[in-house]
Amino acid sequence: MASVYGNALRLSIFGQSHSPAIGCSIDGLPAGIAVDLDCLQALLDRRAPGRSATSTARREADAPEFIAGITDGHTNGAPVAAIIRNGNTRSRDYDELRRKPRPGHADWPADVKYRGYQDVAGGGHFSGRLTAPLCVAGGIALQALEARGIRIAAHISSLGPEPICDTPLDPMKPNRVQLDAVLANPLPCVSASAAARMRACILDAKNDLDSVGGIVECVAYGVPAGLGDPMFDGIENRIAKIAFGIPAVKGVEFGAGMAAARLRGSQNNDPYRMDGDAVRPQTNHAGGILGGITTGMPVVWRMAVKPTPSIGRRQQSVDLEARSNAELVVHGRHDPCIVPRAVPVAEAACALALLDALLEDA
Amino acid sequence: MASVYGNALRLSIFGQSHSPAIGCSIDGLPAGIAVDLDCLQALLDRRAPGRSATSTARREADAPEFIAGITDGHTNGAPVAAIIRNGNTRSRDYDELRRKPRPGHADWPADVKYRGYQDVAGGGHFSGRLTAPLCVAGGIALQALEARGIRIAAHISSLGPEPICDTPLDPMKPNRVQLDAVLANPLPCVSASAAARMRACILDAKNDLDSVGGIVECVAYGVPAGLGDPMFDGIENRIAKIAFGIPAVKGVEFGAGMAAARLRGSQNNDPYRMDGDAVRPQTNHAGGILGGITTGMPVVWRMAVKPTPSIGRRQQSVDLEARSNAELVVHGRHDPCIVPRAVPVAEAACALALLDALLEDA
Amino acid sequence: MASVYGNALRLSIFGQSHSPAIGCSIDGLPAGIAVDLDCLQALLDRRAPGRSATSTARREADAPEFIAGITDGHTNGAPVAAIIRNGNTRSRDYDELRRKPRPGHADWPADVKYRGYQDVAGGGHFSGRLTAPLCVAGGIALQALEARGIRIAAHISSLGPEPICDTPLDPMKPNRVQLDAVLANPLPCVSASAAARMRACILDAKNDLDSVGGIVECVAYGVPAGLGDPMFDGIENRIAKIAFGIPAVKGVEFGAGMAAARLRGSQNNDPYRMDGDAVRPQTNHAGGILGGITTGMPVVWRMAVKPTPSIGRRQQSVDLEARSNAELVVHGRHDPCIVPRAVPVAEAACALALLDALLEDA
Amino acid sequence: MASVYGNALRLSIFGQSHSPAIGCSIDGLPAGIAVDLDCLQALLDRRAPGRSATSTARREADAPEFIAGITDGHTNGAPVAAIIRNGNTRSRDYDELRRKPRPGHADWPADVKYRGYQDVAGGGHFSGRLTAPLCVAGGIALQALEARGIRIAAHISSLGPEPICDTPLDPMKPNRVQLDAVLANPLPCVSASAAARMRACILDAKNDLDSVGGIVECVAYGVPAGLGDPMFDGIENRIAKIAFGIPAVKGVEFGAGMAAARLRGSQNNDPYRMDGDAVRPQTNHAGGILGGITTGMPVVWRMAVKPTPSIGRRQQSVDLEARSNAELVVHGRHDPCIVPRAVPVAEAACALALLDALLEDA
Repeated sequence: MASVYGNALRLSIFGQSHSPAIGCSIDGLPAGIAVDLDCLQALLDRRAPGRSATSTARREADAPEFIAGITDGHTNGAPVAAIIRNGNTRSRDYDELRRKPRPGHADWPADVKYRGYQDVAGGGHFSGRLTAPLCVAGGIALQALEARGIRIAAHISSLGPEPICDTPLDPMKPNRVQLDAVLANPLPCVSASAAARMRACILDAKNDLDSVGGIVECVAYGVPAGLGDPMFDGIENRIAKIAFGIPAVKGVEFGAGMAAARLRGSQNNDPYRMDGDAVRPQTNHAGGILGGITTGMPVVWRMAVKPTPSIGRRQQSVDLEARSNAELVVHGRHDPCIVPRAVPVAEAACALALLDALLEDA
Repeated sequence: MASVYGNALRLSIFGQSHSPAIGCSIDGLPAGIAVDLDCLQALLDRRAPGRSATSTARREADAPEFIAGITDGHTNGAPVAAIIRNGNTRSRDYDELRRKPRPGHADWPADVKYRGYQDVAGGGHFSGRLTAPLCVAGGIALQALEARGIRIAAHISSLGPEPICDTPLDPMKPNRVQLDAVLANPLPCVSASAAARMRACILDAKNDLDSVGGIVECVAYGVPAGLGDPMFDGIENRIAKIAFGIPAVKGVEFGAGMAAARLRGSQNNDPYRMDGDAVRPQTNHAGGILGGITTGMPVVWRMAVKPTPSIGRRQQSVDLEARSNAELVVHGRHDPCIVPRAVPVAEAACALALLDALLEDA
Repeated sequence: MASVYGNALRLSIFGQSHSPAIGCSIDGLPAGIAVDLDCLQALLDRRAPGRSATSTARREADAPEFIAGITDGHTNGAPVAAIIRNGNTRSRDYDELRRKPRPGHADWPADVKYRGYQDVAGGGHFSGRLTAPLCVAGGIALQALEARGIRIAAHISSLGPEPICDTPLDPMKPNRVQLDAVLANPLPCVSASAAARMRACILDAKNDLDSVGGIVECVAYGVPAGLGDPMFDGIENRIAKIAFGIPAVKGVEFGAGMAAARLRGSQNNDPYRMDGDAVRPQTNHAGGILGGITTGMPVVWRMAVKPTPSIGRRQQSVDLEARSNAELVVHGRHDPCIVPRAVPVAEAACALALLDALLEDA
Repeated sequence: MASVYGNALRLSIFGQSHSPAIGCSIDGLPAGIAVDLDCLQALLDRRAPGRSATSTARREADAPEFIAGITDGHTNGAPVAAIIRNGNTRSRDYDELRRKPRPGHADWPADVKYRGYQDVAGGGHFSGRLTAPLCVAGGIALQALEARGIRIAAHISSLGPEPICDTPLDPMKPNRVQLDAVLANPLPCVSASAAARMRACILDAKNDLDSVGGIVECVAYGVPAGLGDPMFDGIENRIAKIAFGIPAVKGVEFGAGMAAARLRGSQNNDPYRMDGDAVRPQTNHAGGILGGITTGMPVVWRMAVKPTPSIGRRQQSVDLEARSNAELVVHGRHDPCIVPRAVPVAEAACALALLDALLEDA
């Protein structure tokens, strides 16, 4: 069930970096969701490569063709399916790729698992390119959630070896100024100066033929209390299950997260107070989730994105055919940092997890 | 599907803290797995409360009765089911619990979700007590994995506000001295002195009517390369999905984890070398997983456990009936720190995730 | 996932004929369903053996102990779990059973699948006794559906080699006289005379040390239009998936069923007419389902129950140890006909399928 | 999860009769399955309309474009995805279709379920056209099974109001003469004379502006003993779940099937004898399945296909807008009998069910 996600929804993602197309099918979307294709394209554009000096030069339209499930601008109840044609794939000697697995990529474990039958070109099904159909599906989920008053936003909360930190998104209520800034700044940050420093950090790594990682924070505002389930289908489990499906994610945390381990109970507990007739936690160390179920506070989570494994430097690998050590230089166009492009993907993933939970509970 | 886990396996966990019994059913276990009940009980004993000054005084045998699925000491192919009777539950005024949700517990979101029908006694289905059946199932999984040469161990890697850190488990190969020490020390640590300092830290918190959290590290040795799947059923997704089902877990990370975000690609990539005829990564920042699939290196992950929300101090809450602010003092016997008891649970969870992946791939 | 059923619900059934207990866990039931235990027991009593000359002499209370999920007579949102202790199991020489597979039973394929580790006593997990926990779960589902105005009834529609046919249940609307008769007659039939003739047919078979089969018809009244899904999760698929889980069922059909193949389109199509402001099919060859989705007409389906394979006659088998042909006489207490006892099981199965679909759609 | 099938496999089917394309994605296929596209096309051609006077005049190439999952003629381990473009869709007044539901079609229940948002053109997602992607996926499964020595064949076992019956496929072992005849005859029958009489029966119905149904029998030869699971994932449950996903199927039966209800146990039980060192049932009333698990005998099942609901005659319907009774004449090109085209679909469905079970057990 590798590339299938969801309980009430069933999202199937398919395609390889250099196959004729990539795409997705989403079953279980209720009929009647209005889908604004321009808005969806804007999300995809935020993910797309080739926009600036900080990302790969491979330029792709990422324009989905909807082949099913949408009629007259609304979901029609049948599975929604879309494909994105792969163009602009450079013909290259993939024989070297098959022989010399790239450190930090899935090349080697995939070779073991698929006994040499895997599609090695461009990383095959493991390519970050597969986050495009995730954004197609997530973009519809984001629109469905907005219609229910749920707004999801992400930003780069820190980046680089000496972490450049962005202002956190308000964990208590949406702040329009923050949300607008994230979309307006050249990198998706609340603080323009953090964005500028991050950009410099990425260019530094690029000059060094190296790469950097970072942390993406994502917040869902307007999520009603009582959503989710105990144990294995809590909101944390659901978000983690999809977030770890985004290539390069190595950690996922909620609210105070890993740092909750360093608080005392008296600090970490969020006290309740009445706010008119509503019960409201006064802090949000829980990240809006207790026992897997939402508290009515914003859902706050972060994911750590490792530095892009494709770097220009010579690296140690092995020659699988010759069964000997080998050196490897990864050719092609690579992002020195994929963190900015991971920001809309985090939003898409979060939207799919929450919509799935909402549909299951409804 | 809240309390059901697995693809090839289907683990169902049931019970409430104060219901007649708790238990589990596991479907999909192959016939013929030898089950050593003493060995299983030893795992449960490591999880059980009431062992020392650092944990709750509620003492329970946690002795499972297997009611199905095992014949003559082996799984018989039918679902394995076990129950543990709940005894030693103090009769108490749960009316206050129903009215005043405890901060940091699931009381309030559960009240919203279940519209007042939830079992509030002792935390109901959200109680940490439900990790006992998880250990019953996981204990069988651990034995099934050991028979395949896979050994899983966990320890407290750090604890408390000024983190007391244990020696990490060797991420490259199993170290018998370390593994023995973790089982021998009074707290599950590699370093005896770390264990002693952690114990003092917990007692400090207890004296302050407070609690502390920590981080549990878990390593699976002997996992073959090629296990797991891309995207949503990678080993990371599978472990995260079950680990976030353990109460109080707020973060899960693999290998370098959240800190991978602070490395450069040239540091984080694990170079390959030949080791005889075998391909071997020279470092293990990946935590044994690339693209969701194992690399043949140990699987290394950590989970952050928040400080126990039940503390003896007076806390701010609300009275749901009077719709007013209220003070709350949580009565009863509470762990000032549940991290030590979470250690065998992490092993059990990891074993279930890996066995499920193994059975799916087999 | 053998013994797990449902999408929104997750029913796990466990136990063997002679294990300490059998039982079930049902996750996903909404909180607040009122559960009347007397009413539930009445359903179980209709399934229980040992009531008359037409069924096995093994007498069992089938009294479930609810160990979780119910508080103050209502579901509490946590998984509902119940066990039924196995008593009255005769100690016997099961060695012969292990060596000589009974024709028509799962003994032989189970021996291959489980490589000799299966529990052979009393049929193990394949025993018809496992329909008791199905009725526990289904009994709750029936009550949940009745609260929504859905009433499910089944009867023996035909029985024996020269089929004795009962009056069909009205496929257009519930008929109280019919429904009462089914519960009042000594065998669950609309027609008292059919019941009497069926009883004679069963006793004939018993005298011949033989057994007979029959067909159970089940109708769900009050199902709203628009329930179910296209393709693989239609109401037909859902009912078939659970009905074929009842031992001895070899065919499942809906509405006109197999006989629809002998109609012309002009006969089989159900014409629509307005009934006030409501759209109503004028006939119900569709059995209340088109394209997997309910039409608002009663859901009508039938299942064929093969004759009990345990018969008193000497049969041809093999000796798996000696690898030679062998004769077999099945000892013990056997039903000459299990069709009457399958009637409440069909109702339970139908209720679980419909409730699952309702919860998924809600 | 409407249009998603399988446990180890996950088949997602998408598309509507008149959407830009239809297609499927199949996750979980092992890497290295050789896919012969000509052989696959031959299966699709057997399903395709427009071949003769007995089927609809809508002629479509049904030529799948594989967009992912196949490299160098083999599955590569990533999801296999294919699309088939919809051409030759006549522009028509669908407004009438939206207002007047066709008897026997899903129009009306779909209108209720999807609240008017469904795609009505050509039956939308409910169209028999969606069996084309089922055959694409099933065609790969058939090839994967043939490589394991499993051969699946189906034929029309009976057709029409006064049933014209074909010679049954041998239920004990494959008969090459029979299998060749089914592929060679103008209708997929063992007996050429039955085929001729069936053809006449279909043309009769056509002349009457009417339609006929029939029964398709499908047999899987070479299935090893021990495949499948008890209760809800038996081979019967699995085949029924997919077979009822084929439009117009109203009944599914195995082995003796519904008629098993009319046998006595002494007749229906299949006695065992040794055949050399192998255990062999001497008859196959069980259809190769006991307790959900295969016996090593051929798996034999049948599905009843109702007469095509689209007929040329004037029918009674309602006008959903005017809320009044109305007459309806279904325009367009319709099959007077879809049974011949359902034959390869049954093979495809059977192959998917068996491959899924095989992969789960492996």
